Amino acid sequence: MAEAPKTCKVILADTIAKRLLQEVKDTLASIGNGKPTLAAFLANNDEAAVKYAEFTQKTCQENGFTFDLHRVDKEDIEEKIREANEDDNVHGIFVYFPIWHDNIAKDNYIKESIALEKDVEGLSFKHLSNMYHNVRYLDPPTNLKKSILPCTPLGILKILEYLHIYNPILASGNRLYGKTVTVINRSEVNGRPLAALLANDGAHVYSVDVTGVQLFTRGEGIKAVRHQVEDKKDWGLKDVLPLSDVVISGVPVESYKVPTELIRDGAVCINFSSYRNFDGPAVKEKASIYVPSVGKVTIACLLRNLVRLIANHPDKNHQQARIEAFADN
Amino acid sequence: MAEAPKTCKVILADTIAKRLLQEVKDTLASIGNGKPTLAAFLANNDEAAVKYAEFTQKTCQENGFTFDLHRVDKEDIEEKIREANEDDNVHGIFVYFPIWHDNIAKDNYIKESIALEKDVEGLSFKHLSNMYHNVRYLDPPTNLKKSILPCTPLGILKILEYLHIYNPILASGNRLYGKTVTVINRSEVNGRPLAALLANDGAHVYSVDVTGVQLFTRGEGIKAVRHQVEDKKDWGLKDVLPLSDVVISGVPVESYKVPTELIRDGAVCINFSSYRNFDGPAVKEKASIYVPSVGKVTIACLLRNLVRLIANHPDKNHQQARIEAFADN
Repeated sequence: MAEAPKTCKVILADTIAKRLLQEVKDTLASIGNGKPTLAAFLANNDEAAVKYAEFTQKTCQENGFTFDLHRVDKEDIEEKIREANEDDNVHGIFVYFPIWHDNIAKDNYIKESIALEKDVEGLSFKHLSNMYHNVRYLDPPTNLKKSILPCTPLGILKILEYLHIYNPILASGNRLYGKTVTVINRSEVNGRPLAALLANDGAHVYSVDVTGVQLFTRGEGIKAVRHQVEDKKDWGLKDVLPLSDVVISGVPVESYKVPTELIRDGAVCINFSSYRNFDGPAVKEKASIYVPSVGKVTIACLLRNLVRLIANHPDKNHQQARIEAFADN
Repeated sequence: MAEAPKTCKVILADTIAKRLLQEVKDTLASIGNGKPTLAAFLANNDEAAVKYAEFTQKTCQENGFTFDLHRVDKEDIEEKIREANEDDNVHGIFVYFPIWHDNIAKDNYIKESIALEKDVEGLSFKHLSNMYHNVRYLDPPTNLKKSILPCTPLGILKILEYLHIYNPILASGNRLYGKTVTVINRSEVNGRPLAALLANDGAHVYSVDVTGVQLFTRGEGIKAVRHQVEDKKDWGLKDVLPLSDVVISGVPVESYKVPTELIRDGAVCINFSSYRNFDGPAVKEKASIYVPSVGKVTIACLLRNLVRLIANHPDKNHQQARIEAFADN
């Protein structure tokens, strides 16, 4: 008898990030924009933010970008962002949130203060509302300027493309049709945008958090142009995990583990928490593919967004930027 | 509001057959075997068989093969096959079954009379038992001579590869892990081999016929090297269709239709009956992909098998045939 075959394939974010960064470098070269500058504003001493900043700096250096980190006082940040908005040498603006841990409204005000054409994370209302409404461009009906998607959800889409969960045989925009996905986390920054993006591409998405389960779909036969949301009263992981082709978890709690026994044989499991939401050895006995972290892909998407912003504004940069150089997302 | 997007993609067998035939021509050129001969034996006046023979002849002519059709008397067929077995100018042997509609044992005897190395349909016991046991080679442990798979099931595997249902990210042999498939038809020629092949590649396969439902899998975590079969007592289409990513139907009855209302949104639907087992307009409102027929792919696989038989026997043909020229199936 031959040895029992290994079933689970572990895919590291690094593998996918490298491909994306190569695409970013190629696109940057093709639009001939020299060395773009990402201005980053850090107004807290959050250890995770500092670590993230260091890693972003390293990635920028390795890929032909200037990373200009400004440590600023909370009370000065709006003014500093306004200056960066006006500075032609700044191509993208990145702010480490949360700034005021106890005041979401104040953070949101700062998000909106970033100029639309420099909002590298797609956090401002215009980018977000386009995303939720499945509108891909900022300038309809001309459709030359692509809307920006937030980096972590976009990174997870790119991972799903790499994993062939997006079926390239189907029409762009419908490539997740027939797929059932569970997303555990419904934050405004990550989980809800992700559920909406997946549903907008045709998936049946169960969005789960401590308050319950919501189903995001484009309706029967995905005839609608954007997703709708339905509360699934009294549903829980026990109802949705056994149905799910893909399980994506981003619970920011060290002790949290997705219950492996509910995951279906052959599912694709992706963790986007900074903690390990899956029990590695157990999940490898069930999943067909396991992606233990996504951070490097997120940063690659940040640079991808920066190049997209530059391509969106060829006049301003006196370049023959080609939006066509980009793929769909 | 933009127009509601079309969801179902209809894929014609011709598209896939053309790709396969190009591969077959390239492989044939690379092994330099000139114009191979397929000897076909027709011992009945079945209209469908005659039509199939005409189409096979046309496909052979267009792709650099000689098709040598022999109309023979039932009682002479064994002797004719023995002559073809010995004839170095015959590279593959094809027999139109059934010969004796009322005597399966006699047909089976004729199947076994075809030399293993010329059995272009993989109908003899050795090829079939290798298939059921997930053994890919005729000559272990040397593993230079590939076992032959029956043309219609092989064709459906090739269609599923083309449709990206086989996930190339996964290891060869496990690429259907996580997929649920229903096969309606459990004939010894088509449905049962197909269910076994899909399960051997990691799928969860519900095999359905008038006697009931059987589940073919490689067990939990697909740790087994070949499939096992479990009766699903009292199960029916109502239980299995809503779970199925892929629905493959081959019921040889003109009035038969797969109940569309049980098919899940976004399923892939493939018909291999000579009748239309799916209600076209209705299925297109639900399926992500619909393949209305497979016949041309089946014939392409027949020629693919013929070239594989030639590659299996480089000495006999004084050629530097390279088995490596072939892909996995």
